[in-house]
Amino acid sequence: MIVRTKPGLRDVLFSINGSILPRIAWRLVTIALVCLAAILASQQHPGIFGQISAIPFTLIGIALSVFMSFRNGTCYDRWWEGRKLWGGLIIACRSFARLASTLDEPDRQYLLRGLCGFANGLAARLRGRDEPAALAAWCDEPSLAASPNPTDALLHRMGHHCLLLMQEGRIGAIHHSLLEAQLGALSQVQAGCERIANTPIPFAYSLLLHRTAYMFCLALPFALAGPLNWWTFMPVIVVSYTFFGLDALGDQLEDPFGLEPNALPLDAMTRTVEREMLALLGETPLPPPAAPQRYVLT
Amino acid sequence: MIVRTKPGLRDVLFSINGSILPRIAWRLVTIALVCLAAILASQQHPGIFGQISAIPFTLIGIALSVFMSFRNGTCYDRWWEGRKLWGGLIIACRSFARLASTLDEPDRQYLLRGLCGFANGLAARLRGRDEPAALAAWCDEPSLAASPNPTDALLHRMGHHCLLLMQEGRIGAIHHSLLEAQLGALSQVQAGCERIANTPIPFAYSLLLHRTAYMFCLALPFALAGPLNWWTFMPVIVVSYTFFGLDALGDQLEDPFGLEPNALPLDAMTRTVEREMLALLGETPLPPPAAPQRYVLT
Amino acid sequence: MIVRTKPGLRDVLFSINGSILPRIAWRLVTIALVCLAAILASQQHPGIFGQISAIPFTLIGIALSVFMSFRNGTCYDRWWEGRKLWGGLIIACRSFARLASTLDEPDRQYLLRGLCGFANGLAARLRGRDEPAALAAWCDEPSLAASPNPTDALLHRMGHHCLLLMQEGRIGAIHHSLLEAQLGALSQVQAGCERIANTPIPFAYSLLLHRTAYMFCLALPFALAGPLNWWTFMPVIVVSYTFFGLDALGDQLEDPFGLEPNALPLDAMTRTVEREMLALLGETPLPPPAAPQRYVLT
Amino acid sequence: MIVRTKPGLRDVLFSINGSILPRIAWRLVTIALVCLAAILASQQHPGIFGQISAIPFTLIGIALSVFMSFRNGTCYDRWWEGRKLWGGLIIACRSFARLASTLDEPDRQYLLRGLCGFANGLAARLRGRDEPAALAAWCDEPSLAASPNPTDALLHRMGHHCLLLMQEGRIGAIHHSLLEAQLGALSQVQAGCERIANTPIPFAYSLLLHRTAYMFCLALPFALAGPLNWWTFMPVIVVSYTFFGLDALGDQLEDPFGLEPNALPLDAMTRTVEREMLALLGETPLPPPAAPQRYVLT
Amino acid sequence: MIVRTKPGLRDVLFSINGSILPRIAWRLVTIALVCLAAILASQQHPGIFGQISAIPFTLIGIALSVFMSFRNGTCYDRWWEGRKLWGGLIIACRSFARLASTLDEPDRQYLLRGLCGFANGLAARLRGRDEPAALAAWCDEPSLAASPNPTDALLHRMGHHCLLLMQEGRIGAIHHSLLEAQLGALSQVQAGCERIANTPIPFAYSLLLHRTAYMFCLALPFALAGPLNWWTFMPVIVVSYTFFGLDALGDQLEDPFGLEPNALPLDAMTRTVEREMLALLGETPLPPPAAPQRYVLT
Repeated sequence: MIVRTKPGLRDVLFSINGSILPRIAWRLVTIALVCLAAILASQQHPGIFGQISAIPFTLIGIALSVFMSFRNGTCYDRWWEGRKLWGGLIIACRSFARLASTLDEPDRQYLLRGLCGFANGLAARLRGRDEPAALAAWCDEPSLAASPNPTDALLHRMGHHCLLLMQEGRIGAIHHSLLEAQLGALSQVQAGCERIANTPIPFAYSLLLHRTAYMFCLALPFALAGPLNWWTFMPVIVVSYTFFGLDALGDQLEDPFGLEPNALPLDAMTRTVEREMLALLGETPLPPPAAPQRYVLT
Repeated sequence: MIVRTKPGLRDVLFSINGSILPRIAWRLVTIALVCLAAILASQQHPGIFGQISAIPFTLIGIALSVFMSFRNGTCYDRWWEGRKLWGGLIIACRSFARLASTLDEPDRQYLLRGLCGFANGLAARLRGRDEPAALAAWCDEPSLAASPNPTDALLHRMGHHCLLLMQEGRIGAIHHSLLEAQLGALSQVQAGCERIANTPIPFAYSLLLHRTAYMFCLALPFALAGPLNWWTFMPVIVVSYTFFGLDALGDQLEDPFGLEPNALPLDAMTRTVEREMLALLGETPLPPPAAPQRYVLT
Repeated sequence: MIVRTKPGLRDVLFSINGSILPRIAWRLVTIALVCLAAILASQQHPGIFGQISAIPFTLIGIALSVFMSFRNGTCYDRWWEGRKLWGGLIIACRSFARLASTLDEPDRQYLLRGLCGFANGLAARLRGRDEPAALAAWCDEPSLAASPNPTDALLHRMGHHCLLLMQEGRIGAIHHSLLEAQLGALSQVQAGCERIANTPIPFAYSLLLHRTAYMFCLALPFALAGPLNWWTFMPVIVVSYTFFGLDALGDQLEDPFGLEPNALPLDAMTRTVEREMLALLGETPLPPPAAPQRYVLT
Repeated sequence: MIVRTKPGLRDVLFSINGSILPRIAWRLVTIALVCLAAILASQQHPGIFGQISAIPFTLIGIALSVFMSFRNGTCYDRWWEGRKLWGGLIIACRSFARLASTLDEPDRQYLLRGLCGFANGLAARLRGRDEPAALAAWCDEPSLAASPNPTDALLHRMGHHCLLLMQEGRIGAIHHSLLEAQLGALSQVQAGCERIANTPIPFAYSLLLHRTAYMFCLALPFALAGPLNWWTFMPVIVVSYTFFGLDALGDQLEDPFGLEPNALPLDAMTRTVEREMLALLGETPLPPPAAPQRYVLT
Repeated sequence: MIVRTKPGLRDVLFSINGSILPRIAWRLVTIALVCLAAILASQQHPGIFGQISAIPFTLIGIALSVFMSFRNGTCYDRWWEGRKLWGGLIIACRSFARLASTLDEPDRQYLLRGLCGFANGLAARLRGRDEPAALAAWCDEPSLAASPNPTDALLHRMGHHCLLLMQEGRIGAIHHSLLEAQLGALSQVQAGCERIANTPIPFAYSLLLHRTAYMFCLALPFALAGPLNWWTFMPVIVVSYTFFGLDALGDQLEDPFGLEPNALPLDAMTRTVEREMLALLGETPLPPPAAPQRYVLT
C-alpha cells in the first residue's frame, strides 16, 4: 500500500513513485509513434483520413468508459473486500484473546501464539511464500507441513485444543462456543482470501476490454490527425494515459494480496497482530511496527 | 474457469482460447456482409444514406452502453455470488471437521465422508449429472435416490445423526448446536445455488437488449457508408465486436454452474473439499488436486 | 417466470411470447402516427422543423438513460430480493425439518404441515387470494381466519407449540432455540415480502420518468423529420421501443409477486416446499412438481 | 407514501397530486422568464448568443446526469433502508410476541404493550412530536420522560423486566436470550433510524449539485435562443423539469421519516404493530388499519 | 458535519460557509488566468486554436464524469460506513447497559463508565489526540497507556471483568455470552474504523483522476476561446467548479474521522453515549449535548 499524504499540486505534476505511469510508459510511447506516423501521412496526403467520422469514437468511447468503470469498480471491490477480511482477522484475534484471558497460562500461550502463526501462515500462503516455515516459528508441530492446507491444519489443532478444554471441564460449553465462534471467523477470513486470490475476473472480460482499449487508442490519431495536425499529440496522449492508466490500475487492484505497490500491506497487518498478542502475553520488547519503505508498506 | 496469466501484448493480439471471439464469429461475419452491401449501394447511388443523422446512433449507443453495463454487472454478480456460495461450502466443511475432531472415529468417518458426498451431490445437481450416483460413492444409503432432493436428503440424515449423538449424551447440546450451524450453512449454500441456477435474469430483459444490439449494429453500416466508404469496416467491426462480445460474456456468466469455459470450477472445488477431509481422516495417498486442461479448470 | 432457453437468432427476430412488445404496442403505434404527421408536415413546409437542435435531445437522452438505468436496477433488485426471500423460506423449511427429525410423529406431522401451510398462506397473501382458505388445507385451526394476519398467526401457533415442547421437557432449551431460529427466519421472509409488496418505488419517481420518456419520444420525430424524411420511422421506432420497453419491464419487475409473466413463480416454489416436506413425512404419491404453461411458471 | 395504481396515460398527462410539479413550479416559471428574455434579445440583436458552443452543455449535462443519478441513488437508499428498518421493527415485534406466548398474562400484557409504546415513541421521536406523551399511552412509567432518550429508556425497562423473569427462574436463560435478541434488534432499528434522521448527505454535496443544476438551466436558453427562436421554450422546460424534478425528489427521499407525501408511512406501520399485538392480547375491537387520505398514507 | 437546513435560493446564491468553494478558489483563479491568456492569444492570432476538435473533450469529459462518479461514490461509502460503525457503537453501548441493568452497582458503574471511556478513546485514536488521556478520565488503570492499543486494552479488561463475574457465578454463562456479544460488536467497530482511517483509496487512483481533471480544465479554454471569445469564461468556470468541487469533496469524505467541516461528528456522538450512560447511572446534572459551532458539529 502506498502511504502518502493527499497529492498537492507538486505531486500532481511530478510524482512518479506511486503513479501508474512507469507501468504504461511503453504503451504511451507506442501510441505517440503511431500518432507521429498519422500526422506525417496526413501532411503528405491531405484528406486521407479527413473523412473519418466522429460517431464511432463517441460510441466506443462511451461504451469503454462505462465498462472500464464497471471493471475498475469490481477490482476495487475485491481489493476492499480483501482489506475487510484482514480487518476481520484482527477483530477475531482480539476477541479470541479477550475470551482467553482467564485460561491457564500455557493454554493461553499456545493459543495466542497460534493466532500469530495463523496470520503469518495466511500471509505466506497468499503470497506464495513458504507456508510451513511461516507457521513453524509460532507453533511447534511438524505434522502441519504434511497437510494439503497447513494454515487450516493449525486452526484445526487450535479448535481441537479448545474442544479438549471443554471436555475436561476447564471451560464451560458456552465459553467454548464463544472461542469457537472466533475460530470460525478465522476460517471465513481464510476461505474468503483464497476465493479472491484464486478466482480472477473472467479472463474473457479483461481480454475484451484490453482489446477494445488498444484498438480505440490506436485508431484515435487517424481520426484527429487531419483537423488537428501537430496538436494531435495532446488529446491522444491524454486519452491514452487515462484509459491505459485505469486499465493498469484495475489489473493491480484485481490481485490485492500480491506485492505490487498498491497491494494490501499483509506483512504490516500481521505485525500488528503479533504486537498486540505478544503484549497480552507480557513479552518485552515488542517487535517494532512495520514502517513504509519509499512510501510503500508491504 | 480460465486459468491464465494476465494478458500481455501477444495475448491481446492473438489469443483465441479463452476469448469470446469464436462464440460471436458468425454474427461479426453477418455484420461484415451487411457492411459490404451498404458500401456498394452507397457507391452506386451516392447520397442514398448520406442524410442519416448521428443523433439516433448516439442516443441508442448511450442507452445500450448503460443498460448492457447493468446487465453485465448483474450477470457478474450472479457468478461471483455462486463463487461465494461455494466458498461458504468450503468454510462450512472445514469448521464442521474442526468441531467433529473429538467425535468417535466411526461417527467422524461417516460425517466427514458425508461432507464430501454433499459437495459431489451438489455439483452433480447443478450440472445436471446423475445426483444419486455422485452421492453413492460417499454414503451408502440407497434411500437417498428416492427423495425429490437427494443432496438435501443426505444433509437431513447427517443432521439426524448429530441429533442422535446429542440425545444419547455423547455430545453436549451446545456442541450439537455448533455442528448444526454448519449444516445450516450448507443448506443455505444449496438453496442459494439452486436459486441462481433456476432463476435466470428475466427473459424479456435479455431479449430486449439482444434486439436493440442487433438493430444497432445492423443499422450502423448504413450511417457510416456514405462518409467513410471502405473505411466503414473498421469502426463497424470494432463496435460490433465490443457490443456482441459483452452481450455473449453476460450470457456465459449468467449461468455460473454450467460447463462453459468461464463457468466456476465446481469439480476442482469439490476435489479441494475431498482432499482436506480425507487428509483429516488420515487417508493416503490423497487424490491429486484438479489441474486445468488447455487453460480451463472445470 | 418465463422459462425459455437463451434467445437464438430466431427468437430475437420473431419471439412475441415472453417479449415486452405486446405491452407497449399501442404506444409504438401512437409514436408512429406522430412520426407520419411530422414527415408530412415537413414535406409540405420544408424547414419548419429543420432548425431543431440536437443538443436538447442528447441531453435528455443521456439523463433518461442514466435515470432509467437507475430505476430498472432498483426494480430488478426488488425482484431479486423477493427471490432471495423465498429462497430463505425454502432454507428455513429444510433446516426446520432437519431439526425436527427426532420429534414424535404427531408433533412432526403438525409442524411440517404447518410449514406447507405457511408457504401457501404467504403466497395467497401476496397475490391477494383467500389467505385463510390456503391455510385451512394444512392446519385445522379455525381461529386463524379471525387474525389481522392469518399467516403470522399460524407461525405464532407453531412457535407456541415449540415452546410447550420445551417446557414439557420433550426437547432441550438449546434444541428449542434452534427450531425457533428457523421460525424467526420465516418471520423475516414474511415481513420482507410484505415490505416489497406494500412499498412501491415512490410514485413521483415513476411519474417523472414516464413523463420525460413520453415527451422525449413524442418530440423526436420533429427533430428528425427534416433531414431524414421517410427514414425517420426507423430510428424513432427503435429508440421508442428501447425506452418504452425498459420502462414497461421496470413496471413488471417492480411487483415481483404479481401474476405478470415475469413475476416470481411463487406457486412452483410452494409446491417444492410441499413435495420435500411430504416426502419427509413418508407420504406417497407426492404431488407433481409445477410445470410451465406456454413457457410461463406461476 | 403515495398510494396509487401505476400511472396510466391519463395520470401521465394530468396527475398533479403525487407529482413533484407543485414543488418546482416557481423554478420553472423563472426559467421560462429567462427563456423569454433570451428569445427577445436574440430577435433584437441576431447573433448575440449565436456562437455559444454545444461542447460545454454536453459536458456539464453528462456530469450533472451522472452525479445527480449518484445523489438520487443515495437518497433512495436512505429511504429504502428506513423502510427496511421499520420492517425489522415489525419482525422483532412479531418474534418477541411469539416467544412471549407462554409467559404469564400480566408480563405478556406489559411487554406487548411496551412494544406498541416503542413503535409509537420511535415514530414521535423521528417526526419531532411529543415523545413522552406517545409512550405514556402504552406504558405507565413517569420516569421515562426524564431520560435523554425516552424510547430507549422504555426498551431498557423491558430488558430489565426480562432479566428479572430469568433471575426469578420463571423463564430459562436460553429463553431469555431469545427474547433479548429481539430487544437488541429493536435497539438496532432505533439507532439506524436516528442515524438516517440526524446525518444528512454532506451539505456541500447537495449545494454543489443545486448550484450546477441552476447554472445549467439558466444558461441553456442563451445557447438555444439563436437557432430555435420560439421553439426554445420546449426543450428548456423539458430539461429543467427533468433536472429540477429529480433534484427535488432527491430532497424528499433524503429524509424518509418526515411528513412529505413521499415519506414513509410511519403512522400506518405503527398501527399495524398495534393491531397485531392487541389481537394477540385478545382485545376487541381492534383499532382500524390506517387508510390513505387523498392518496397519501402518513 | 455541517448542520444546516436544506439550501434555499439564497443559500444557493451566496452560501460560502459549508461550501466547497474556499477550498478550490485558487484552482479556479488559475483556470481563469489561463482562460484570459487563451482569449487574448486567440484575438491576436485568430484561428490559432480554432481547429481544436470537440471529440477529445467529449471523450475525456465522459470518462472523467464516469470515473469521478465512481471515486465519489466510493468516498461517500467510506463516510457512510464510518457513520454506520459509530451507530453500531451506540447500539452496543445501549444493549450492554440494558443487559447490565441487574448487576451490582460497582460492577455496573465500572462497566458503563468503561463504555464511555471506549468511545472517548476511539475518538481520540482516530483523530490523533492523546488516547491514554482520553481513557484516563473514565477508567483508572495506568497500565492501559503502555499497551500498543490502549482502547482495545480497555475492552480487554472489561471482557476479563465479565469473565470473572461468570466464573464467580454472579452471572450465568448465557448472560455472560450476551454481554460478551456487545463487546465483540465494539471490537468490530474499532477495527472497522481503523480500517477506514488507515487504508486510503489507492494513491495511484486519486493521482490519476487529479491529473486528468487538471489537464482537462487547463485545455478547455484553448478549445473554446476561438468560437466563444469573452463568453469563454462562463462555461470554463462552471465546468471547472463542478469537476474540482466534486474532486475536493471526494477528498474530504475519504477521511470521515478527520476535522474537516464535512467529517463525522465523533465528539457529538461520544457525548450522546456519555449522556445516556450517565443518566442510567443516575448522575445529575448530565453534560449538555454537543451544539454546532457556526453550523459545524465536530
